[in-house]
Amino acid sequence: MSYAMRLLDSYPGTFTLDASLLASTIDALNDCAQACTADADDDLSEPDVTSMVKCIRLCLDCADICTTTSAVTSRRTDYDPNVTRPLLEACIAACKSCAAECEMHAMKHAHCAVCAEACRRCQRACQDLLAIVV
Amino acid sequence: MSYAMRLLDSYPGTFTLDASLLASTIDALNDCAQACTADADDDLSEPDVTSMVKCIRLCLDCADICTTTSAVTSRRTDYDPNVTRPLLEACIAACKSCAAECEMHAMKHAHCAVCAEACRRCQRACQDLLAIVV
Amino acid sequence: MSYAMRLLDSYPGTFTLDASLLASTIDALNDCAQACTADADDDLSEPDVTSMVKCIRLCLDCADICTTTSAVTSRRTDYDPNVTRPLLEACIAACKSCAAECEMHAMKHAHCAVCAEACRRCQRACQDLLAIVV
Amino acid sequence: MSYAMRLLDSYPGTFTLDASLLASTIDALNDCAQACTADADDDLSEPDVTSMVKCIRLCLDCADICTTTSAVTSRRTDYDPNVTRPLLEACIAACKSCAAECEMHAMKHAHCAVCAEACRRCQRACQDLLAIVV
Repeated sequence: MSYAMRLLDSYPGTFTLDASLLASTIDALNDCAQACTADADDDLSEPDVTSMVKCIRLCLDCADICTTTSAVTSRRTDYDPNVTRPLLEACIAACKSCAAECEMHAMKHAHCAVCAEACRRCQRACQDLLAIVV
Repeated sequence: MSYAMRLLDSYPGTFTLDASLLASTIDALNDCAQACTADADDDLSEPDVTSMVKCIRLCLDCADICTTTSAVTSRRTDYDPNVTRPLLEACIAACKSCAAECEMHAMKHAHCAVCAEACRRCQRACQDLLAIVV
Repeated sequence: MSYAMRLLDSYPGTFTLDASLLASTIDALNDCAQACTADADDDLSEPDVTSMVKCIRLCLDCADICTTTSAVTSRRTDYDPNVTRPLLEACIAACKSCAAECEMHAMKHAHCAVCAEACRRCQRACQDLLAIVV
Repeated sequence: MSYAMRLLDSYPGTFTLDASLLASTIDALNDCAQACTADADDDLSEPDVTSMVKCIRLCLDCADICTTTSAVTSRRTDYDPNVTRPLLEACIAACKSCAAECEMHAMKHAHCAVCAEACRRCQRACQDLLAIVV
């Protein structure tokens, strides 16, 4: 069981969201942040770094946005859906853009294939969470 | 001249946004992140911390979201409006929620008055930037 | 296999550190950041929040430091041990302080027991990594 | 007066550090984080991006470490010098490494000259703060 799930399990208050869906979204966000941070660095080590510039930039954005979305959705106390909804939308957009760019390099660079997978999983998880955030 | 403005001035590529409006938004985002981080800590030192719980939580969210929005809007290379727009919307929502809560404590706690001011300034700056992000 | 390990596996350059030790440290850092962010929020929902103030503050510090240490150690390109060493020392100190405080609340609050465990695991992982960072 | 100073002025507890020295360090940290985030992006837009790889990596590290050091030093409640001291040392090391690299590109790239200046100012501010953190 992930730390996200274990901490939700021991939350002293109440919340109406499905805890296991929320925990798997937080896990996907943390995984995606890690994949994007590492992939941006992998790109920097490629001999053809010039062709990886857009990928680096989108990975940096996606890492930052996933990290923040993970923190905000992890906080259950006095939860504010007016903040969570557009933040999830921003995160879905960042994951989509980053995944699309990584997929263009996936045949050539294995690290981009891994990162694209993490982004697509995170995009779907955020879409599932957004559907139940009211 | 702020570092945000000086770095935009020396950007080697081109971008179509108004540089001084963008720089003043980045400055407002960084100021708001600083105010929210410090205000959350000030709240923790108040004898009536029980009544400051919602303020702490909203300050933590707002600080995280402003920090990320500052980083994303600072990056001009291969700029993606599909990410920037919902992120600015999330930031506006976070600033509004945090400002509204801080304003309720502003008479009693000077630090909340300062934080509310930073949030309202950031909210307006993000709204102005959102209006020209296409 | 974690994303940290998969991305290290596909790193295009070379690095001399043991990849599986590095990956498990990055995983421990990400887990600890998640546990601390969630535990600070759990503390905020406790009726005795007044007695949790120190725990909240140390969790916030530990989350921030673990997130940054994870990002810095994930970057292998032009790696700088002069930065990594004191950063790992700061992270070890933050994990120790946070764990010690969480352990004092662990009997009463299950979420603090989980967070203490994540901090101790991260502390050990960073100590192991520090021993081989030259 | 900066928000860092205004929030320290309205801190409800007591702290023994010189507030104006602390505030100017926090300002230098926030400025340096901003300069490094923007400079990494400026580097990505340079036609000779291949020769800027080390600069990009060090800027990303320095931005992350300055952001975290700013947040940790902004929190005065239950302040822990055992964490603050090695964190300031890590920040000084990051600023030195990043400044040294940026200075090598300063004649060719104006953005690196600005970033080097921000790093050197932040390095000195952290050294001054470290001298009084006990």
